[in-house]
Amino acid sequence: MNIDFTFENPTRIHFGRTAMTHLADELALYGPNVMLVYGKNSIKQTGLYDKVMATLNACGKRVCELAGINSNPRYSQLLDGCRLVKECNVDLILAVGGGSVIDCSKAIACSAWCDDDPWEHYWVKNLPVPTKVVPVGTILTMTGTASEMNSGSVITNETLKIKAGHQFPMSVACPRFSILNPEFTFSVPKNQMVSGIFDIFSHLMEQYFGGDDDCVSDYLLEGDMLALISASRKALANPHDYEARSNIMWAATMGLNKILAVSKVQDWEVHQIEHQVGAYCDCPHGIGLAIVSIPYYKFIMSYGLHRFVRYAKNVWRVDATDKSDEQIATEGIDCLSRFIDELGIPRRLSEVGCTEEMLPLIAESVNKIGGYHTPTTAEVLELLSSCL
Amino acid sequence: MNIDFTFENPTRIHFGRTAMTHLADELALYGPNVMLVYGKNSIKQTGLYDKVMATLNACGKRVCELAGINSNPRYSQLLDGCRLVKECNVDLILAVGGGSVIDCSKAIACSAWCDDDPWEHYWVKNLPVPTKVVPVGTILTMTGTASEMNSGSVITNETLKIKAGHQFPMSVACPRFSILNPEFTFSVPKNQMVSGIFDIFSHLMEQYFGGDDDCVSDYLLEGDMLALISASRKALANPHDYEARSNIMWAATMGLNKILAVSKVQDWEVHQIEHQVGAYCDCPHGIGLAIVSIPYYKFIMSYGLHRFVRYAKNVWRVDATDKSDEQIATEGIDCLSRFIDELGIPRRLSEVGCTEEMLPLIAESVNKIGGYHTPTTAEVLELLSSCL
Repeated sequence: MNIDFTFENPTRIHFGRTAMTHLADELALYGPNVMLVYGKNSIKQTGLYDKVMATLNACGKRVCELAGINSNPRYSQLLDGCRLVKECNVDLILAVGGGSVIDCSKAIACSAWCDDDPWEHYWVKNLPVPTKVVPVGTILTMTGTASEMNSGSVITNETLKIKAGHQFPMSVACPRFSILNPEFTFSVPKNQMVSGIFDIFSHLMEQYFGGDDDCVSDYLLEGDMLALISASRKALANPHDYEARSNIMWAATMGLNKILAVSKVQDWEVHQIEHQVGAYCDCPHGIGLAIVSIPYYKFIMSYGLHRFVRYAKNVWRVDATDKSDEQIATEGIDCLSRFIDELGIPRRLSEVGCTEEMLPLIAESVNKIGGYHTPTTAEVLELLSSCL
Repeated sequence: MNIDFTFENPTRIHFGRTAMTHLADELALYGPNVMLVYGKNSIKQTGLYDKVMATLNACGKRVCELAGINSNPRYSQLLDGCRLVKECNVDLILAVGGGSVIDCSKAIACSAWCDDDPWEHYWVKNLPVPTKVVPVGTILTMTGTASEMNSGSVITNETLKIKAGHQFPMSVACPRFSILNPEFTFSVPKNQMVSGIFDIFSHLMEQYFGGDDDCVSDYLLEGDMLALISASRKALANPHDYEARSNIMWAATMGLNKILAVSKVQDWEVHQIEHQVGAYCDCPHGIGLAIVSIPYYKFIMSYGLHRFVRYAKNVWRVDATDKSDEQIATEGIDCLSRFIDELGIPRRLSEVGCTEEMLPLIAESVNKIGGYHTPTTAEVLELLSSCL
């Protein structure tokens, strides 16, 4: 653990079948004006909207709504939310949905009382938050991003064709509370469930692939990967298996609440590449990640061979007897590839609406940060072409 | 994950060689009156006392001191601290030391403005904290208990001959900040280092041995055990190995900040037994735990065989080929036993001042909670006799 760090995470988690019983107590901690943020119609179809509104009414809250948040939340929606917060003098933003709804809510919370244009202020200039940040609470309906217990927010600027994350300060931008009932994820269709699963797996791998030391976070990341693989297989066989879905949900939250990342060199290049794929063809985030992961990890394997050997042995239990490091490492990536097949995720960018013409634009616009190796534009283009 | 839970942990951790540079910023968040709590003379010998005092003075704090906290902090010291908090109208308790100093500080923080007798109020009646709880900050010099990032406190009531833990609410009793510089543990003598290591290992095992499910926490606990075993071996070979000591330090904090325990059935009987051994012969906590662990786990093995098999395979990499579950499980406990030998920890209670006459008194007074099986007084006595 050679990298010094400061860690804090103030989110209070209520987890399980009874989690919603804590909502009224949480609401009591805030003023009367609540902005309810959600996506398309799914929370109305499942009846969750009515349950939440009933509690809000019983607690005497005045509710305004920001509905229709996209699965890749747009900058224009962030601006709409900021206007609404000011108009209604909102005391609490209650986000009901998955990562997109929560990401958008946190960005609104930090932007509403900021005098600048938020894109300029945060995404371009990385300036501090204003004194007044609106508290956020969440009710999670789709698992993957861990947005329910971190301070990150990924927004797509549709005019600039940039999808980019921003890390707000943990102390003010983490949700104050998050309600996690695994049953709420039962209604998520299979293609969205597997997208979420791969998003989680990618978070774990991107925190894991970096550095040469042997630190606590490495072991914990391996543990979370093993838990996720085991639970995913059970959920694929039976999507209504409560234990499986609950383990996926918590593996996701642990996977990016930042406590498994302390003191780690990390490599978030796969997310950088997917963000630009998503900006051009609006594909589901986890699907995009899975498609680019295999060529990416094959590409960097030789730069971080030692870590890839460890990954193969500890996560996929590859038998190392009489094999070269390169063979072991390659088998590890092959195991990952088979896991993507088990999840039933498409393997080619053309299957998610990406065209050959888009590739140079995507490759050019990708943020190149790398880990063991920082890729060039030509290398990203080659990698994208290989999985078109 | 079949047990619903609420989790929160508000402690801000500053970790690494530069961690102390954050002290002044943290102190600025509190009023002028600081109570400095520490143990015997070691922080004066290492120069840490002077460094802390220099920062306190530079920040314009008025400092009162509660010194000489025992390695098993006494109830009388808790009461002394409460008087001092009121006399000096303390705004922040700054605990500089290991688990004993921090445990005592948290108990003082929750007791000073409580009108009742604290033992009656918390340990006997388990009543809520008063409105006014004094904030605590810590500078850690010895690793093991994770007291720096939880809300527990173990106090020895010397009159009643009871050593017992109390869990205060996480939201108010967790330290507001903790400064963890692994270099501060370099001066800890080897016998105390290994005692701390086994305390950590015991926390992980006691959270792990319970239940029959296959939940995220199980995998993370296995990961933390693996990290601790690896780092301990390096630290035994070279106590000044910064990476090893830093991994031990963080494995300890993660080991009982409660985030690896969510949704787990647990078995804290080993701690219950050791607490009463400690109450009678005042032995180092981790040493007492190690001595009673082997007979205890052998004793309960048959009641939770499935979990002991998993432990043997995943933590100690026992080869299961052609072996019965009982053989595999037994080999796992044998590996633990060899690890205790590697640490150079004594194996018999008589080596830490325990006499045959004490055993019935200890067995009678032990809190029997168990996990897979709740032991009787006769069983505890037999177990203690077997390792006298």
